[in-house]
Amino acid sequence: MKPLTLPLVLDAMGGDNAPACVLKGASLALVRHPGLRFLLCGDSERLEPLLAAMPPLKAASSILHTTSVIAMDEKPSVAVRQGKNSSMRLAIDAVQEGRAFGVVSAGNTGALMAMAKIVLRTLPGISRPAIVATFPTLRGECVMLDLGANVSCDARDLLHFAIMGDAYARAALGLNRPKIGLLNIGSEDQKGHEALQEAANMLREHGGGLDFHGFVEGNHIPEGTVDVVVTDGFTGNVALKMAEGTGRLIRAYMRDAFTSTWSSRLSALLGKRALTAVRDKLDSRSRNGAMFVGLNGIAVKSHGRADAYAFCNAISVAVDLAAHDINHKIIAELACYEKSTPASAEILPVQEALR
Amino acid sequence: MKPLTLPLVLDAMGGDNAPACVLKGASLALVRHPGLRFLLCGDSERLEPLLAAMPPLKAASSILHTTSVIAMDEKPSVAVRQGKNSSMRLAIDAVQEGRAFGVVSAGNTGALMAMAKIVLRTLPGISRPAIVATFPTLRGECVMLDLGANVSCDARDLLHFAIMGDAYARAALGLNRPKIGLLNIGSEDQKGHEALQEAANMLREHGGGLDFHGFVEGNHIPEGTVDVVVTDGFTGNVALKMAEGTGRLIRAYMRDAFTSTWSSRLSALLGKRALTAVRDKLDSRSRNGAMFVGLNGIAVKSHGRADAYAFCNAISVAVDLAAHDINHKIIAELACYEKSTPASAEILPVQEALR
Repeated sequence: MKPLTLPLVLDAMGGDNAPACVLKGASLALVRHPGLRFLLCGDSERLEPLLAAMPPLKAASSILHTTSVIAMDEKPSVAVRQGKNSSMRLAIDAVQEGRAFGVVSAGNTGALMAMAKIVLRTLPGISRPAIVATFPTLRGECVMLDLGANVSCDARDLLHFAIMGDAYARAALGLNRPKIGLLNIGSEDQKGHEALQEAANMLREHGGGLDFHGFVEGNHIPEGTVDVVVTDGFTGNVALKMAEGTGRLIRAYMRDAFTSTWSSRLSALLGKRALTAVRDKLDSRSRNGAMFVGLNGIAVKSHGRADAYAFCNAISVAVDLAAHDINHKIIAELACYEKSTPASAEILPVQEALR
Repeated sequence: MKPLTLPLVLDAMGGDNAPACVLKGASLALVRHPGLRFLLCGDSERLEPLLAAMPPLKAASSILHTTSVIAMDEKPSVAVRQGKNSSMRLAIDAVQEGRAFGVVSAGNTGALMAMAKIVLRTLPGISRPAIVATFPTLRGECVMLDLGANVSCDARDLLHFAIMGDAYARAALGLNRPKIGLLNIGSEDQKGHEALQEAANMLREHGGGLDFHGFVEGNHIPEGTVDVVVTDGFTGNVALKMAEGTGRLIRAYMRDAFTSTWSSRLSALLGKRALTAVRDKLDSRSRNGAMFVGLNGIAVKSHGRADAYAFCNAISVAVDLAAHDINHKIIAELACYEKSTPASAEILPVQEALR
């Protein structure tokens, strides 16, 4: 664990419930992570009255004032060009300039990714950053990436995602040797896109320290067959949202069923603790906070509609990943991969990227 | 509704529980569809003793004897070459030769698709068949395709899927004007692959009689935002299996929660009907039966592990689709699309295919 001497910078104006939920989330996070300090980017006229009601947070924070905010529906390219003084951009700049150990924002995802890529740049050897988060499984939790940063990916991207997912699972889930699976539409070797076949070969033949399980299918994600699920950003995004929607559908079924008759209502009353336990396990707020992995710095995206509890969890993600020094793990894993790949091997793009 | 004068042919040897579950499923289907007749392809030495115990089914069936069976893990190409006398192939042949109105098999999916494509061929104007099935939503049910036949698709394929999904939703769900959505990772117009953009333009500009809603995201599927979800076979397969796995995960959570304490067990006892209602709604057996749409004939794939109840539902899918003459609906919709597309339009591949 690395001691965090720098503050965490928050885009205090990003998200549907900003700045109130951002500050309340930071307040909650202070209880969970004593000693944490914050740099708050946003409109001081709006932040100060809120901080006045939260003395511990006020004591742990400093404000970087700006009135410019990136709208939730702004095009990323416009945000990059015109948002140089926005709360989001100033927050990312603070990480790049070494004034914060990481940034958390609940603002516009596309704008945050575009700005973070331009300002922080990718880690040496990584060509495309990915969005990574955890997902509940029958065995606990797994890590899935990419969740939407890259619509299509080649074999090398998928290999990099595997390396980054491995580092993430070790940092965030505390696993020693995470089992890695490539998402496909069959477990047989000959299934799927060419890029998948090629990535599987690269992982099998030159896997470095990675524990490559092979292909997994959609149902294997919640079944917990592997610890890290590697896929392109299109499939990953659809799968994640499909699971969220399915959870909501089942909750609606349960609500209907347990309010339909006198006895079911009594049962619900008696089984309140059980129903609450199920609801808590399905609560996506507890898994809020997706890292933009592959960048020179810790950048965590909170859901735009996050409440204080959810935002606090996104802060925890940033704190944990920084404390576990995830980016050094990624760089070390890439180097290990490079070492294990014979110079004469046909597949050299990673080595090229590392030069 | 078209009267079904021909029998339905069953691959009696396909699936993990064949032939027992196939025959038991057919027996159940006879109750649901009185007057239905069956042609059973398989080993008469194994089928006759089973039929002896099911007199109504015996009276409604004739056997097409063969001892050859396609293994569940056989490669499709090998099945096509070496399986000419298999129960699966003889069943498909019976449809092609006009001796059955459709085929249902719980056998090897890839082999069934490959054989059906070669023997039945695609409908005029359709280049690639798709796998289509229904999915539960907050508003009832939706239709989703492709669920795994085509790993990658171009804009024209997606347009054809929209037309076929529309016909399927009208036949299977009884909708007058199904709302159609293209699965994407954002609802904004500029999101996603080029093929998606192009397909959206084709649907917007020359939609024929289709009610095109625009892009939908993964969570919109179970939310019931649209009646027909159009996607490539890779994404559709992952999304479907992810939803199945998520359902299993939540059932496991509920089982744990409702058996953990004395009061939760009592609550489960009292709320048994409510819990059963939820379980029934999640029961994938009730939605067993995916059609290979776009072929000259009705070909329905049952889950390989289907029990009798699930197999009976796959039979119902074939019966309903044949009775609603789905393939004529598809041909008419394609013609309507062709008519609405000006000859001078830039996008002509469908017209070419129709020539």
